[in-house]
Amino acid sequence: MTSPTTPATTSTDAPHVVVVPDSFKGSLGATDVAAALRTGVLAAAPGARVTCLAMADGGEGTLDALLTTWRTPIHHVETVDAVGRPTTARYAVSPDGRTGVVELAEASGLPAVGDVPLQPLHAGTRGTGDVAAAVLDAGAEEVLVCLGGSASTDGGAGILTGLGARLLDAHGEPVPDGGEGLAQVASLDLGGLHPRARQVRWRLAVDVTNPLVGELGSAAIFAPQKGAGAGDVAFLDEALTRWADLLERETGVRVHELPGAGAAGGVPAAFVALLGAELEPGATLVAEAVGLPMALADAALVLTGEGSFDSQSVRGKVADGVARLAAASPARPPVVVVAGQVLLPAEQTRAAGITAAFSIAPGPIGLDDLMSRTVARLSDVAASVTNLVLAR
Amino acid sequence: MTSPTTPATTSTDAPHVVVVPDSFKGSLGATDVAAALRTGVLAAAPGARVTCLAMADGGEGTLDALLTTWRTPIHHVETVDAVGRPTTARYAVSPDGRTGVVELAEASGLPAVGDVPLQPLHAGTRGTGDVAAAVLDAGAEEVLVCLGGSASTDGGAGILTGLGARLLDAHGEPVPDGGEGLAQVASLDLGGLHPRARQVRWRLAVDVTNPLVGELGSAAIFAPQKGAGAGDVAFLDEALTRWADLLERETGVRVHELPGAGAAGGVPAAFVALLGAELEPGATLVAEAVGLPMALADAALVLTGEGSFDSQSVRGKVADGVARLAAASPARPPVVVVAGQVLLPAEQTRAAGITAAFSIAPGPIGLDDLMSRTVARLSDVAASVTNLVLAR
Repeated sequence: MTSPTTPATTSTDAPHVVVVPDSFKGSLGATDVAAALRTGVLAAAPGARVTCLAMADGGEGTLDALLTTWRTPIHHVETVDAVGRPTTARYAVSPDGRTGVVELAEASGLPAVGDVPLQPLHAGTRGTGDVAAAVLDAGAEEVLVCLGGSASTDGGAGILTGLGARLLDAHGEPVPDGGEGLAQVASLDLGGLHPRARQVRWRLAVDVTNPLVGELGSAAIFAPQKGAGAGDVAFLDEALTRWADLLERETGVRVHELPGAGAAGGVPAAFVALLGAELEPGATLVAEAVGLPMALADAALVLTGEGSFDSQSVRGKVADGVARLAAASPARPPVVVVAGQVLLPAEQTRAAGITAAFSIAPGPIGLDDLMSRTVARLSDVAASVTNLVLAR
Repeated sequence: MTSPTTPATTSTDAPHVVVVPDSFKGSLGATDVAAALRTGVLAAAPGARVTCLAMADGGEGTLDALLTTWRTPIHHVETVDAVGRPTTARYAVSPDGRTGVVELAEASGLPAVGDVPLQPLHAGTRGTGDVAAAVLDAGAEEVLVCLGGSASTDGGAGILTGLGARLLDAHGEPVPDGGEGLAQVASLDLGGLHPRARQVRWRLAVDVTNPLVGELGSAAIFAPQKGAGAGDVAFLDEALTRWADLLERETGVRVHELPGAGAAGGVPAAFVALLGAELEPGATLVAEAVGLPMALADAALVLTGEGSFDSQSVRGKVADGVARLAAASPARPPVVVVAGQVLLPAEQTRAAGITAAFSIAPGPIGLDDLMSRTVARLSDVAASVTNLVLAR
């Protein structure tokens, strides 16, 4: 891997350790966790090359992780929030300009509308469509859309509208925003769709497998936490069905039962049927975006971690994404989780492609005590693991 | 290493894991700790060869560890306890008959005389001498003497007496047992000494570095816990000095300042000066006795452990002995401590030749909860470590 411009002092023999943790929620941010792990690695193997990468699971916080890694400028778009009020949303573009990143929660998130009564039928994603249009204007060839944290159940209709499409009722009039509008939609006018909307590759970070409609659908499972009562849920499920029927008529693509289509109020429905979007596990998507596969190619050890390592961790979260990529890398480096608490038995840990998981707890200890020693213990456990893997 | 009689099903490619823990005091015996670690190793590496060895640090419990490993008969000797009352003491002989093991606490221990007032000046080690004589009668070529837990401060005079020597006063009369006798001793009659006493190799398990006499000597440091007041300490220190002077006149060997001579009330003084005994760290001595060096020769991983892994652990305890032997073995296998609590920082752990130390604590947890989960967590951590070292 040495190029003619590599300085003579760079040793390709130095073992390469990749440090790519999630945050320890409520205790330490991912960047600080990575720094503490790095300290331990270098204490045990002073000659090691250590690459720290910011990771996220494709949900809220992903945009920040990518901006940290890429060190690219933050772009802003003046748009509307989930209930139509003016707001400013951010997006990111990768250093090579190829990849744009849209985080749905930026413009259309639930927390941002926490100051007004929940509007399960009216809230929408038009603001995210405005952001997506700005990313297309910026020239991105692929767009990562991070879902999660949405306030709406609109099947992605708002995003389409932001991108220039029009949803019309039986009289040819535009329907209102939100799930309410879906109940009236009769036809779709794509004449004004952003010219690049069908040229780029859309990649959606999706960590649920819920279908768009039905008992496990977007309305039934997720709308209640956005304020929907039982009647609203039935209404929204019918509206989403009507919307999916329309999409199927227009495109031939059936998204009613598509696993993952129920994420973020059904946003994938419009993206998949009309724009050919791919649904991908968030952690894997983000990992690729920060360059993890390339970093893993010659890694001798991969350290990841999170506050609580449990059965959720190996289902689409950071540790899972890291493990999948490590298994696919030519070096097949061992992946070690260093966690505040380890609740997953070793057998299930291994089955998930994770070599080992260790807690930072030094023995019987209370939560407060342990949190106060998180940095030191992260370094210590990282040093032990490094010593075991490298310094032999 | 395959011999013609090795069954065809034995694969020499199977990685060899050596499991050699101390007990988790107050929680789990060493045998059960070893079984739990073994379970974890085999869960991660079903094809591994696992050798479980009982270890001890050369103090009380060492005889039991050796009997467990050797599966040899227990031998009994009718003798006297530290204050002269009849008692029965045990000893062991290795399967090949070459090595005898005497544990001082068996005949001359402090706990066995806990039912009477402490007798710091009168308590002695004659019983241990009787046991040693029985071991010589049994034909052993080397004798391991495990010190620790003594009730007396007699410079080993009692053991000599048990072996047939006589300590005489200025009038040629035998002196009384205990430190009191040393204050009167004027000459030594070795005419009746056991004929094999000077033929065998005496190896004393000693884990302190205290000299025989002076401010850090046996009387000053250890006699108070055997009941000596300030005046008794001064008397005993003077008596031990008189005894060491006599030994030096008789043998030319000066033991006054010898590091370790202060162990067990000065027992090494007589052994070293008169019988050429070697003082050795207890854990190393026991490790050799159970065959650890041979087991380590082709080990891919060594697991040890104890309830609390702290600064004491790397000073002559089991983990320390295991680490020293592993470092000296041709395979130089990684040594991993699995402990109830890990108090030693990774840097000091490495400096002691131990590759890594992990706690069984899965996160914030109380002592009782952790103790109730010791077996399962030992297996789990052992599985993680095994996976990290072997299954790559």
